Formats: sequence, C-alpha cells, structure tokens
Amino acid sequence: MEIAILGGTGDFGEGLAVRWAADAAHTVVVGSREAERASEAAARYDRRLDQSDEDGTIMGAVNPAAAGRADVVVCSVPAYHLADTVSSVADHLAPGTVLVSPAVGMKRDDDGAHYNRPGAGSVTALAANAAPEGVSVVGAFHNLPAPRLKQLDRELSADTLVVGDDDNAVRTVVGLAEDIRGLRAYRAGPLANAAEVEALSPLLINLATYNVDLDHAVIRFE
Amino acid sequence: MEIAILGGTGDFGEGLAVRWAADAAHTVVVGSREAERASEAAARYDRRLDQSDEDGTIMGAVNPAAAGRADVVVCSVPAYHLADTVSSVADHLAPGTVLVSPAVGMKRDDDGAHYNRPGAGSVTALAANAAPEGVSVVGAFHNLPAPRLKQLDRELSADTLVVGDDDNAVRTVVGLAEDIRGLRAYRAGPLANAAEVEALSPLLINLATYNVDLDHAVIRFE
Repeated sequence: MEIAILGGTGDFGEGLAVRWAADAAHTVVVGSREAERASEAAARYDRRLDQSDEDGTIMGAVNPAAAGRADVVVCSVPAYHLADTVSSVADHLAPGTVLVSPAVGMKRDDDGAHYNRPGAGSVTALAANAAPEGVSVVGAFHNLPAPRLKQLDRELSADTLVVGDDDNAVRTVVGLAEDIRGLRAYRAGPLANAAEVEALSPLLINLATYNVDLDHAVIRFE
Repeated sequence: MEIAILGGTGDFGEGLAVRWAADAAHTVVVGSREAERASEAAARYDRRLDQSDEDGTIMGAVNPAAAGRADVVVCSVPAYHLADTVSSVADHLAPGTVLVSPAVGMKRDDDGAHYNRPGAGSVTALAANAAPEGVSVVGAFHNLPAPRLKQLDRELSADTLVVGDDDNAVRTVVGLAEDIRGLRAYRAGPLANAAEVEALSPLLINLATYNVDLDHAVIRFE
C-alpha cells in the first residue's frame, strides 16, 4: 500500500514513516509544502532504516503530489493547519482515498493542557468538512507520543483508537495501525465520537507533567 | 482510616467498599438516604467478605451520619445528584475531611456516549463548589468499571487518575487508591484538569460498544 504523510517532516510523521516502512514494507511518501524539505526528510528517514538494517522505501514529494498517488493520506499537521492542508490537496485526491487525521486541538494554561473542542465537534470533523466528495476521513493515532513512535528499537506496546463513518475506510486504517509492531487498534465508533478520543492527548500531557514516570506515556485498554 | 461511601448501595460503591475492607482493613461506612438500605447493603457486603475469607468491617448509616464520622467521604452518586448530596451532608463534615468525587456527566445518542461538561468546568468542580470551607475535594476513580471493581477475585490491573488543588488531600486519596490491590494512582494536576479525566468514562463506554473484548475495560498508562 502507498501511504502519504503530509507534513511528514516532523517527529510524528517520522515515527509513522519509519515504522510503516520497517514493519510492513509499505511505500511511504513524506509530503511537505516544499519539495526540498520533503526529499531531505525522506533521505534522512531512509538512512535510519539502513542503520537499523530495515528494508523499506521512503520517498519525498510536495504535499499535492504525495497525496495524489497514495491510497491513504495522513495529515500530520497541527489542528490549525488541518483544513488548509486538506483543501490544498483536495483536487489531487483520487476518489476512494482514505484521509487520516491524527491532529488534536489543545490550549495550555498554568494548570495543564486542555482539549480545545472546535465548533465542528472535533478536529477530525474539521478534516471531514474540508475533504472532497468520495474521500473518507478517519481519525486515528492521536494518542501516540512522537518521541516514542520514532524510536524504532523500542517496542510500542500501545493502543490507538480509530473513529470514522465509513466502515471500509476504518478497516483499512485499523489494518495499517496493526501493521506497526506492538500497536493495537480499537474502534471508537463514528466521527461523532472523535472528541472523546482527541481529549486523550491533553490528558497524556498532564500526566507527563505531574508524574515523572509518565513522560511520553502510551495507553493500553485491558 | 474510616471511609464513608455516600450512595454506596450501588455497584460502584459496593466495589470500593469490599476492596477497601478486604485489601486495606479500612473501616467502611456505606451511606444511603435511607438507614435501612444502608444497613442492608453493608450486611450484604459483609457476607461477601466472609465468603471470600476476608476480614474487614463494613457498616451502614444514613448519609449525614456516615459523612460525619469519616476521614474520607466518597460521593458515589450520579452527577446530577452530586451537589445536592454534598449539601445534604455539609453541616456534618469535620474540617479536614477529604471529599472524593468519582462522578461523570454524560449524554448518550445513537453514536455513543459523550462527555457532558458542566458549566462549572467539570463534575469534580461542581462538588468543590458545593463543599463547605475546610473540606478539600479530590476527583478520582472515575474510570473504574463497577462490575470489575466488585469482583474481589479478579485482579484489577488498572490505573486511576487523581485531581485536586490540595496536595495533602490528593496524597491521601492516592494512598487510598493504591491500598487497593492492582490499582495504581497517577496525579493529573489541579481540579482545573478534571474535565480531561472525566472524559475517559464516555470513551470507555464507546470502546465497549464497538469492541467485544473491551467490555468493562480498564486503562493503563505505560
């Protein structure tokens, strides 16, 4: 399967890219607004695969080109860039493409991080509103800490939650998630249930703030 | 330590009562609005301890009497009864009593359960607003499924999150939580961070709805 990771030059995109390339031999295309940054990141991730004796292919491309050829497009951008990013690639997405949103809106104050629920109901719903007809939006991977995701030599032992209205698209993303070694995916229902999933991220930040042993913690449901 | 569990005749109160009595030899007083229901429940829980060959003392009393003699008072009532329940015992609470709120406000629709954030910011904040001066409110135990909590022969293997503004009170509740075998307590910061903790409960309900193996699931942070 070919996966594009838009805004894939950050830590979170790097984590998904190297895990999918190493664990599942998916073709990963790192997208960026600038072709040069995309190529540079892809080359850097490729070197990491080599150093870890992993096969796999990671390429780079500007966001619209990356999105246009992929089966699954992950929008690894901050919540406030999400709608713009989806709009910028909308004309390039083939019908049937699955768009994955891992973004969360948060605000911080002296007490901690708080879920900043958008008027649309959730950040995932924002992505769905911006997506063109025929493209299904699925929320997933919100709760995975980028520094831990990046460490190829560290077993993830994590769960992630998947929300979406299109059963086939949800099934595809559950499968992609479980392609990553040590990651279990659970369904949390339709897009209308995305807010409760997204609210895990500020909670994890607060737990890291108030418990030294919960830095970059993951969640497991048992 | 003496612990009162107001509204302790339900499944959740039963779980806390039998676990504290069995695992930590705390004196537990089950509170109810009706003395007879409280005594009946306490006798029933006591029989369960006997059947499991556990020591421990569980008594019953009307809510104000239960609250008046306890070091820690757990308000095991639905969110919409919380403020009334706290008010009904307020005159009986000794200064320094710790009031624990495990309640969560939810609404349900065809998609699932959703966190219903009160105007006060959280249900725990509602309890804090209703508590008399000198009584510290701590949020905890929100995310523990009552049917699993009740099963004395089942290892909990769960985490719970504790929020509160008074460090001593938080420390007391963290200690009480960890008195329960297989339960780890993590701090999630001050009361202002309660909403993200309370929002776990509808998420757990949604996971149970969409995943057969996550019925009455618990959370662990690793």
